Amino acid sequence: MAAMKWWGWGPEGLEFTHEDKPALRPFIQWALGVDVASASVSPIPFKDLRVPESRLTDDLRSALEAAVEGGFVSTDRLDRVVHARGKSLHDLVRQRRGELNRVPDVVVRPGSEDEVEAVMRSGIDADAVVIPFGGGSSISGSLEAPAGEQRPVISVDLGRLNRVLGIDATSRLARVQAGVFGPHLEEQLSAQGYTFGHFPDSFTHSTLGGWIATRSSGMQSDRYGDIADLTKGLRVVTPSGMLVVRPVPATSNGPSIRQIVLGSEGRLGIITEAIVEVRRIPERRTILGYLFPTFADGLAAMRDIAAGEFSASVTRLSDAPETQFSFATRRLPSLVDKLESAALRTYVGRRLGYDTGQMCLSFIGYEGSERHVARERKAVGKLVKRHGGLCIGSGPGTLYDQKKFDIPYIRDFLLDRGVPGDVSETAAPWSRLAPVYDAVRSAASDAFGRLGVQGYLMCHLSHSYHAGACLYFTFAFRPTPDGDILEEYDVVKVAIQQAFVDNGATLSHHHAVGTEHAQWLEEDISQPGVVMLEALFEGADPGRHLNPGKIV
Amino acid sequence: MAAMKWWGWGPEGLEFTHEDKPALRPFIQWALGVDVASASVSPIPFKDLRVPESRLTDDLRSALEAAVEGGFVSTDRLDRVVHARGKSLHDLVRQRRGELNRVPDVVVRPGSEDEVEAVMRSGIDADAVVIPFGGGSSISGSLEAPAGEQRPVISVDLGRLNRVLGIDATSRLARVQAGVFGPHLEEQLSAQGYTFGHFPDSFTHSTLGGWIATRSSGMQSDRYGDIADLTKGLRVVTPSGMLVVRPVPATSNGPSIRQIVLGSEGRLGIITEAIVEVRRIPERRTILGYLFPTFADGLAAMRDIAAGEFSASVTRLSDAPETQFSFATRRLPSLVDKLESAALRTYVGRRLGYDTGQMCLSFIGYEGSERHVARERKAVGKLVKRHGGLCIGSGPGTLYDQKKFDIPYIRDFLLDRGVPGDVSETAAPWSRLAPVYDAVRSAASDAFGRLGVQGYLMCHLSHSYHAGACLYFTFAFRPTPDGDILEEYDVVKVAIQQAFVDNGATLSHHHAVGTEHAQWLEEDISQPGVVMLEALFEGADPGRHLNPGKIV
Repeated sequence: MAAMKWWGWGPEGLEFTHEDKPALRPFIQWALGVDVASASVSPIPFKDLRVPESRLTDDLRSALEAAVEGGFVSTDRLDRVVHARGKSLHDLVRQRRGELNRVPDVVVRPGSEDEVEAVMRSGIDADAVVIPFGGGSSISGSLEAPAGEQRPVISVDLGRLNRVLGIDATSRLARVQAGVFGPHLEEQLSAQGYTFGHFPDSFTHSTLGGWIATRSSGMQSDRYGDIADLTKGLRVVTPSGMLVVRPVPATSNGPSIRQIVLGSEGRLGIITEAIVEVRRIPERRTILGYLFPTFADGLAAMRDIAAGEFSASVTRLSDAPETQFSFATRRLPSLVDKLESAALRTYVGRRLGYDTGQMCLSFIGYEGSERHVARERKAVGKLVKRHGGLCIGSGPGTLYDQKKFDIPYIRDFLLDRGVPGDVSETAAPWSRLAPVYDAVRSAASDAFGRLGVQGYLMCHLSHSYHAGACLYFTFAFRPTPDGDILEEYDVVKVAIQQAFVDNGATLSHHHAVGTEHAQWLEEDISQPGVVMLEALFEGADPGRHLNPGKIV
Repeated sequence: MAAMKWWGWGPEGLEFTHEDKPALRPFIQWALGVDVASASVSPIPFKDLRVPESRLTDDLRSALEAAVEGGFVSTDRLDRVVHARGKSLHDLVRQRRGELNRVPDVVVRPGSEDEVEAVMRSGIDADAVVIPFGGGSSISGSLEAPAGEQRPVISVDLGRLNRVLGIDATSRLARVQAGVFGPHLEEQLSAQGYTFGHFPDSFTHSTLGGWIATRSSGMQSDRYGDIADLTKGLRVVTPSGMLVVRPVPATSNGPSIRQIVLGSEGRLGIITEAIVEVRRIPERRTILGYLFPTFADGLAAMRDIAAGEFSASVTRLSDAPETQFSFATRRLPSLVDKLESAALRTYVGRRLGYDTGQMCLSFIGYEGSERHVARERKAVGKLVKRHGGLCIGSGPGTLYDQKKFDIPYIRDFLLDRGVPGDVSETAAPWSRLAPVYDAVRSAASDAFGRLGVQGYLMCHLSHSYHAGACLYFTFAFRPTPDGDILEEYDVVKVAIQQAFVDNGATLSHHHAVGTEHAQWLEEDISQPGVVMLEALFEGADPGRHLNPGKIV
């Protein structure tokens, strides 16, 4: 897996474009008052980037070279810059501007758990900072060393630990190295007829270890479970030795060490292996599109699905603004045909009494045996109808499925046009979803108003549970001509996040805390919760060598 | 809810008897060489019990009386003795003998969260030990103060905090006080059409707070989830203030504080409230009995059910020794008729080729709509047949359902006859179940042999997951005439527990660590895991006031 662009998402040369999406340019013109016809803001050329000198000492270099065989100790400038940060909007803007802070002094790529242990020992002995690096796709600031860090900084890239080591077919458990990227993991599993079923938006550029360290969730987690459910066993290199969590299905052995490692963002150690649940590749898999008259109708349907005798693999519901955005990014003629056809418009607008401005697009996925899928489709279809919804077939679902990993590219596309855009997501009980949604819309609108900018906010429900759901907001705005993009971005982002925690929702459903959400941690988990996390990190890492400054 | 006997399970006057179970006396005669016709060993009379004087100081008494209104500060001897321990076999034997160690100096019964906070403050200010007490049903030694504890010991009985405070019908979440007992919780919920669905064997004598503090599991957890799944929000009185966990369905806000409180056995604070998932009482609920030719056939069937497109509410499978015990405890003529009928014997023994000595009894539960239950029954029935199993109808299931909470009484019945009997349970991946089972049988057999005693060991699978299951062992033996029951018991118990951890299983699936399983903690969670728990407890409770000595 090649590294991502040092300044943006995905490999060099792969970019989002509006050119094959005829409705997108007018949509953005309408929504943000921005003409995306041509890009006007480029990242600083790499040759002009002022990369701080590596502070790696000769002793530490020798120790690391002894720890990791085969020349996998790098002080290459590009390598260091690629490993300096993740892909938060702050990260992207600052990298594009050439505003580097504390770039790692060295990037090491251990090829075995023993080598990770040796790196850990070398780092601690040299009083260095050790930051594990998976796909580098964090959008919460989990990867950057503190600006004032005086100690040497080691980025430990786990990319060489990328193998499925074995599958226990009886237990449906796979032993997997933590540095494997999503596609490579699925490829190895599918060769034996299995799937992991974990497909976050970052899938192509994120790793198993990263998913675990950030409590990730994927588009099919309604069926497969979040990463916290899927991860059973763990091996973690810690300052006090190898932490081994047994892959038992459940246990009553005190506060769960497994759950303590999940979401720990490198503060407790470096995850080298996990034993995870895998499932047989289903006989049939399909995602259907649905339309609901309003967001409230759709939410009520999703809520009923989550409690019913169903097992939908995907429950996704866009609000009206996101539905309009989805229509604007359409590419496949089949979808255009369907949605734009006079017949459907008439049917939707007149027969069902839909207000097309309020209409919400939804995707519901099914998988399993042919028979199971047929039965679920039918039962869910009836439920959808009871909520005023309408099935629009598999075309939109297929399209969604095809383009689901393209979303992160849009931020770069917008930044090339001087426009900041980003996401914020949360989870809340079903009864709190409407209040949270309203509060976020109002908070974002106020923020746009205070800044005096034209902005757009849209939302989808991305995961359903018996007791609640995840609401996933996306926003963008046209910044003021003379303002600082990051300052203006923060006004909007902070307003949204504050609305989450003020309304009983959590700071993030699946994007972790890092540094960018840390200011809401105490409001989310209360002060005694913070005391417990501090005690945990201090006790496990008294020298504060492990990814300092993250979470708390 | 009245307190349990100070020396045994359940309320005074309620006891297990063999007299209505004609096959039990000969069975125990055969299995243990013991005639249970009459009891020969009685607990010491309470009047002869030497209860240590309370060490409560006048200052602390005043502070507690100010903290808890209405005379709920007790130094009554019986009250203190009832709160001294749980119901482990060690607890029962020592209580019966009158061997009290460090009995609490005072029992307080706060009537509100504010009062719990005031008790906590008073306790810490007076450098006292604070031990929360729910139903007192712990069988892992989670409730006893350390023998050498010099500080005053306060037992905080949560029994007055027993209300369902509200149900959020939209989110299907109930806000419940932690001291509520199982039956009272279900009663309050069912008045509004809901059920919590958590039915551990201790159900009648255990509390919500106790379930959370020990990571409990119930007989229907296959469908409803373990307590760790059902518990969403938490309120916990801690030395650093009120810990509040929001009832969000999932979150990515760092290592899970929710999961840290689960299983914490009073080491981090006193749980006062939880927000838990509830479900509508199902239209239909049934438990069917099945017979399998061998334990291996039954395990294979349970494994397939756990991965299939089913949602059984109960999956229980007894091994052959437990099947024989079940037959020996039969009471209802309908079951006797079925199982003893010449026709069934012939059918089972000849037509299916069962070896009745290897035959295993299983219960599989279904619930939901009539239609759903009918469909699941049929599908599971086919699967069972493929594994050589035979449905024996709803009679045995009904019986099992009726007597499921009677099991804990048997230990007292046996101790009245000088016979120690107890349980040990664990969880492991499916591929490890047979090795764990074999190792435990062999370890127990060796232990009985070393002691030179006749013993009996039986087992059932009690909970199934996609990746593994819980194996629940019950054992009893006829001790040597001159040996110490507890020493001999330890030989057997230690052998079984050691076989768990030596074979990749966990120290307990749902009975917690306490003091009695603490010796296996490091083998189970590895040394860095112990370091993390110690740091957590030390950080949250630097004065070590909270239930010291438990877990680590």
